[in-house]
Amino acid sequence: MSYRLGELAERIGAELLGDPDIIIDRLAALDAAGPDAVTFLSNRRYRPYLESTRAGAVILAPELADACPVPALVLDDPYLGYARAATLLSRTVEATPCIAASAVIDPAAAVAPDASVGHHCVIEAGASVGAGTSLGPGSFLGRDSSIGPQGRIAARVVVCQGVHIGARAIIHPGVVVGADGFGIANDDGVWVKIPQFGGVRIGDDVEIGANTTIDRGALEDTVIENGVKLDNLIQIGHNVHIGAHTAIAACVAVGGSARIGRRCAIQGAVSIAGHLEIADDVHLTATSAVPNTIREAGVYSSGMPIQENRVWRRNIARLRQLDDMARRLRAVERKLGDRA
Amino acid sequence: MSYRLGELAERIGAELLGDPDIIIDRLAALDAAGPDAVTFLSNRRYRPYLESTRAGAVILAPELADACPVPALVLDDPYLGYARAATLLSRTVEATPCIAASAVIDPAAAVAPDASVGHHCVIEAGASVGAGTSLGPGSFLGRDSSIGPQGRIAARVVVCQGVHIGARAIIHPGVVVGADGFGIANDDGVWVKIPQFGGVRIGDDVEIGANTTIDRGALEDTVIENGVKLDNLIQIGHNVHIGAHTAIAACVAVGGSARIGRRCAIQGAVSIAGHLEIADDVHLTATSAVPNTIREAGVYSSGMPIQENRVWRRNIARLRQLDDMARRLRAVERKLGDRA
Amino acid sequence: MSYRLGELAERIGAELLGDPDIIIDRLAALDAAGPDAVTFLSNRRYRPYLESTRAGAVILAPELADACPVPALVLDDPYLGYARAATLLSRTVEATPCIAASAVIDPAAAVAPDASVGHHCVIEAGASVGAGTSLGPGSFLGRDSSIGPQGRIAARVVVCQGVHIGARAIIHPGVVVGADGFGIANDDGVWVKIPQFGGVRIGDDVEIGANTTIDRGALEDTVIENGVKLDNLIQIGHNVHIGAHTAIAACVAVGGSARIGRRCAIQGAVSIAGHLEIADDVHLTATSAVPNTIREAGVYSSGMPIQENRVWRRNIARLRQLDDMARRLRAVERKLGDRA
Repeated sequence: MSYRLGELAERIGAELLGDPDIIIDRLAALDAAGPDAVTFLSNRRYRPYLESTRAGAVILAPELADACPVPALVLDDPYLGYARAATLLSRTVEATPCIAASAVIDPAAAVAPDASVGHHCVIEAGASVGAGTSLGPGSFLGRDSSIGPQGRIAARVVVCQGVHIGARAIIHPGVVVGADGFGIANDDGVWVKIPQFGGVRIGDDVEIGANTTIDRGALEDTVIENGVKLDNLIQIGHNVHIGAHTAIAACVAVGGSARIGRRCAIQGAVSIAGHLEIADDVHLTATSAVPNTIREAGVYSSGMPIQENRVWRRNIARLRQLDDMARRLRAVERKLGDRA
Repeated sequence: MSYRLGELAERIGAELLGDPDIIIDRLAALDAAGPDAVTFLSNRRYRPYLESTRAGAVILAPELADACPVPALVLDDPYLGYARAATLLSRTVEATPCIAASAVIDPAAAVAPDASVGHHCVIEAGASVGAGTSLGPGSFLGRDSSIGPQGRIAARVVVCQGVHIGARAIIHPGVVVGADGFGIANDDGVWVKIPQFGGVRIGDDVEIGANTTIDRGALEDTVIENGVKLDNLIQIGHNVHIGAHTAIAACVAVGGSARIGRRCAIQGAVSIAGHLEIADDVHLTATSAVPNTIREAGVYSSGMPIQENRVWRRNIARLRQLDDMARRLRAVERKLGDRA
Repeated sequence: MSYRLGELAERIGAELLGDPDIIIDRLAALDAAGPDAVTFLSNRRYRPYLESTRAGAVILAPELADACPVPALVLDDPYLGYARAATLLSRTVEATPCIAASAVIDPAAAVAPDASVGHHCVIEAGASVGAGTSLGPGSFLGRDSSIGPQGRIAARVVVCQGVHIGARAIIHPGVVVGADGFGIANDDGVWVKIPQFGGVRIGDDVEIGANTTIDRGALEDTVIENGVKLDNLIQIGHNVHIGAHTAIAACVAVGGSARIGRRCAIQGAVSIAGHLEIADDVHLTATSAVPNTIREAGVYSSGMPIQENRVWRRNIARLRQLDDMARRLRAVERKLGDRA
């Protein structure tokens, strides 16, 4: 899709400094963009490329407008401007809706007339697919599950029975929603499986990354509220509740019955224990381990950054003696009389 | 499935305090259960809901029986009672066994007459499926592999060639059993792949969570003994051996040739190095890192819980100087003459 | 495939001590090998089994040749010798190339005449499959993607649109290449998705483990160079660049735009932040967390090995007071006058 620069500026909420009649066809990186492309500058690491850019226009912040050698689209958050421009420029002609001949759709399922169902999909009885939603090849929608309108379900997605997904869902390949939660009870050394009766309820505008797994609840449902964004290879345990507009990066593990607030930002490889609460607006940096409830908004961290192996070995050996060191320090202080 | 309360009590091994003729149709949470539902109380967090429950009966411990306003099912481990009741109440009428027309089954495969094979499954030559076992849509069973009786294999499960799975297996979507182990040797800077000749042997009553991967052995087999329960997104390297009735929570990584004992309990996001042994009855708390053999049963832990980011930054900076701190403390002690 | 021992020695680059006319049919472990099998000894843990081996021959290092009771294949790196022998002995008669009737191949796709396409595969328009390459059942190749010659793509692999994979690729089940990167921008509390226009370029001789995910780039491509080996359940974010002959073990998370050098060795469960660089020949031990650029080759580590739970609890409590301890130690030193 192409845009006049003037229209693009208006649509992304930017002030245009330059010729509004330039035609923009695509988006490109600052150092790769040609005259038909818009680019952006939001990370100062790329600042040196600005002077020599050949882009048709650059989305950037007000303080950089004067330094821009080509037309500028100026707004306070250039990254957001980039997101908006990318969204506009990515619009493609929609494929004609189509139900593949090899798909197996139960007569008691409800597929909207303009939905698309890919090759080798299976849709069971009682399931429904909303208007304009597409299912990629080999996806599975279990009985009595539903996917709302305008969804984009990729290839090889598994949605088990009794899962409800809202509008405009984007679900990437290999995702599994609604497998049994990990419920077991110990009977004299032998594990007894606890059947999982709950479902999964997912709000509108949720994106789920490749090979992420979201388990069904034990008695009540697992709940993902509106606007939640999940990256790849994330584990969401049974009966987890994730508040609206929370974003979680890849390889995060969330234990069963954890309740995560709204607008949280959780970086990669974080581990969150089960049966706890995390307040709204909590930010967890990468590799954090959360064993207990977090009651206050804020930025929290744990984990140990790398050192050279020989240095780490020494420090980690001392860490194992830290309680002893603390006691010895206290003893020294007592002897010196400055704390006793 | 419905039960008279008296029969339910007998079947779960509980003492009934109340009317044995009440009919129980389902299981529900303590605060959500109506008169047709049984519920349970095992986590003290839910104790406040007991007085006002409207459940048909509550499974609980002896010391709470007097406080129960409705019929009580009393036993020492209410969570186990709940597991048993859930199992009974989850029994449904079995679907009629069916081989989907779109499944591709090699003539040299052996599928039991009352097994079910879902749409778009592929079963290769020499493979066998036991009596009463069902394969969900799109699952794959490689040549010369076998799945025992009464198994429940979900959608999109991949069982590669030469994998043997026992009775009553429960395998969730996206699981891959028997992919090649990660065997490589370095030839002057270039990695040479080591073919993986071993298989995978999985015992009876094993459950495997969604998108978990279990690699085949290099020369010998990877072995998962009876009653092992694996959660989602777990990695089991080649030639790992997991002892009977060990349970492993989500996102655990187990390195090649690790040998884990029986009845171990391994919480989420634990990392276990290869070529080590873990004794029977070891309990590893969440995020533990196990670099070496554990010879004694017990509870082991590592990892660092979160702190506020600005506090963590200071502490972690000191951690990097810990060896230096330890030396300085020793010097202080020497100067004070209390340790030299 | 069978070999005369003399030929095997020559092909793996070993000196033969013993009868060159012995016939070797297979590979087995040191304590399990019979006279028809070659075995190897590279890990000293297995040294005690050497005296009693019944193998047809043992691949081992020069210093052990005298102790070998059976014919010896002597070379400096016996593990590499094993890899080479395993490669030779694993050669099997190739299955006749075959396009499954249930596969759906767009007329505008190009599948080499001697390629194999499994049941229920889907190959979209503009995609190409190289000579001798096989796709396992249920795999998906999106539009305008390509897989080079002699590749082995397992069951249920998803290769999205615009992904290019070189020669001799080995891709295990459940892998997803080319799902959208995790690009979101915040618009007043609501996340806006950033369309991902880039692709993925994967070199020759790359192996990718089960259920690993490799995201497409935002504007430029994600790049995996020649000879890279990836284990299972790895996350590679958008615009990551991995240098040639780097090996990454299971459960590693690599954040977006990270640039990893050549010949790096990254052990399991490592976490690498985005937007950083790692030099060539960096070795990261298991569970390391890498928050910043690594400029020098070497071995780096972080993470905390397990202790008994009650010891860990005490040490971790002190760790949270470490900055305070450091200040108190400084105060003690000042008082003693030995550092001020």
